[in-house]
Amino acid sequence: MTLTADNTAAGTLADIGERAWIRRLLRLLPAVPPGSVGIGDDCAVVRAGGDRDWLLKSDPVIEGTHFTVDAPAEGIGHKAIGRVLSDLAAMGGEPDWILVDLVAPGATSVARLEAIYRTASALARRYGATIVGGDSSRGPVLELHVFGVGHVPSGRAVRRMGARPGDAIYVTGALGGSGLGRHLAFEPRIAQGVWLREKGWASAMLDVSDGLATDLLNLVEASGVGARIESSKVPLSDAARALAGERTALHHALYDGEDFELLFTVPAGRDRDFASAWREAFDLPCSRIGTVTDRPGQVEYVDEAGQAVPLAAEGFRHFQ
Amino acid sequence: MTLTADNTAAGTLADIGERAWIRRLLRLLPAVPPGSVGIGDDCAVVRAGGDRDWLLKSDPVIEGTHFTVDAPAEGIGHKAIGRVLSDLAAMGGEPDWILVDLVAPGATSVARLEAIYRTASALARRYGATIVGGDSSRGPVLELHVFGVGHVPSGRAVRRMGARPGDAIYVTGALGGSGLGRHLAFEPRIAQGVWLREKGWASAMLDVSDGLATDLLNLVEASGVGARIESSKVPLSDAARALAGERTALHHALYDGEDFELLFTVPAGRDRDFASAWREAFDLPCSRIGTVTDRPGQVEYVDEAGQAVPLAAEGFRHFQ
Repeated sequence: MTLTADNTAAGTLADIGERAWIRRLLRLLPAVPPGSVGIGDDCAVVRAGGDRDWLLKSDPVIEGTHFTVDAPAEGIGHKAIGRVLSDLAAMGGEPDWILVDLVAPGATSVARLEAIYRTASALARRYGATIVGGDSSRGPVLELHVFGVGHVPSGRAVRRMGARPGDAIYVTGALGGSGLGRHLAFEPRIAQGVWLREKGWASAMLDVSDGLATDLLNLVEASGVGARIESSKVPLSDAARALAGERTALHHALYDGEDFELLFTVPAGRDRDFASAWREAFDLPCSRIGTVTDRPGQVEYVDEAGQAVPLAAEGFRHFQ
Repeated sequence: MTLTADNTAAGTLADIGERAWIRRLLRLLPAVPPGSVGIGDDCAVVRAGGDRDWLLKSDPVIEGTHFTVDAPAEGIGHKAIGRVLSDLAAMGGEPDWILVDLVAPGATSVARLEAIYRTASALARRYGATIVGGDSSRGPVLELHVFGVGHVPSGRAVRRMGARPGDAIYVTGALGGSGLGRHLAFEPRIAQGVWLREKGWASAMLDVSDGLATDLLNLVEASGVGARIESSKVPLSDAARALAGERTALHHALYDGEDFELLFTVPAGRDRDFASAWREAFDLPCSRIGTVTDRPGQVEYVDEAGQAVPLAAEGFRHFQ
């Protein structure tokens, strides 16, 4: 993949794109304290004494970017909370508290806002979290900024950086075509994330929000490894198949994003035990899609003809 | 003051205003767990085991609402972090961690954003907090949503609800005219808030963000008491005096808002000891402006002629 060089003379966000902006931001902010995790993983992890680490995460949903102006209120509330829960799940976290910053034009219907909060609150409760605060302000479009706090036993957050060559690569559920509706109704994989962390199965994990191609690259870059996936093993959603036409269903599964499934690696040699343990624990499908390699930052897929092809990271790009 | 009845048939946010919206929201959300504090105080307070309670707070700054399009980057970054720190201060909290959700149009200058984050990070560090995460998304106007986490010793957060009849009412600094520039450069009163909590001086406290008149009403309503303030004792800022004309300097001090000073009560009989202890501890002025009364929800001020007049809550109203 090609990224704008980090040392670009200052332009606009659209010029440099989100990845380069985040890298500039990382250089600008001070390092986090030892034992903590800052920007660059699914959540920040902070030590707070006692036997727990706290996971902190913020995610927005913005009209025109994350949902359309005619999206149902229930979908907006679900997605707002679901995004943060999915990030907590990706580190094996259990959700605790949530704050919601609302931005809305004065002309927004109160009934619509109440439906949004009712759904948001119900989803939070279902996964053990309580909305305990927030703010309401005027702005040109409807937005919810959700701040989530969760926890893991101290030192046990599942990072993106633990994948080793030979590890098996898995993804939950099925991918692609989330824009048809699933992005407003997905189930955050809290139970699966906690189980993977508790049983020590996952050597690295994240949630698929920018598309499998981009997020697999995020995982291998964080771990200093590479990956080879088999195109025939990528689980295709019904929506991805329904959308197949100009782009194949596989292309939708690789690049659409907003799947909010867990992508993780299991240490080499444990994959057979893992597969049977998973089947015993969950009805949710879990697919082995490939293997971690020792070629840093290289992601390739084996196509239908058996050819290994470099995978371009063309996932959803903010600002561009 | 007159509020739209809470049971208004659903209209728009502009129809019912922020106070009524927050009341509807409160009825809609589940109660927080025992020992915790939810919506309605300066921060949420959550029990997390151990000897600390955590304070959680989110505050936005939005172009067109909290700053103008031509505001200097440094002022935006300062205000974004300062608002949250001021809320932590208002409960006697010490800041720990911060996340920042950025919303920006693609055409936003990267240099401007870097200046915002540099100032934000520096202010956070000055008060012991570290920016550990956040998000960047597209949107029609520039916004920063800041999520702050702080702490107090378990059970020691200073609430809005502890004022008793006879308590003395104090405010730090000087009020009014913040829009002339101070709202982008105020100093959050962390040291003062921590001291007031540690020494046990404050029976109730909040920070003046919506204007003294409104925030005093917020404090007495939370405490189930009333207040009488003397107009001659309200500390007028230079900016309030400079703005005096159509409205008096006192009117600016009562209603302008965004002062980010601490408004608190000190138990009856302790006010003399308090005044000398404060002078020993801080150079910052602290003014006794009045006394808590036993008339619930009634705020009056004694004017220059010695007449007691009911104080209307005309502070800054979101959505209206």
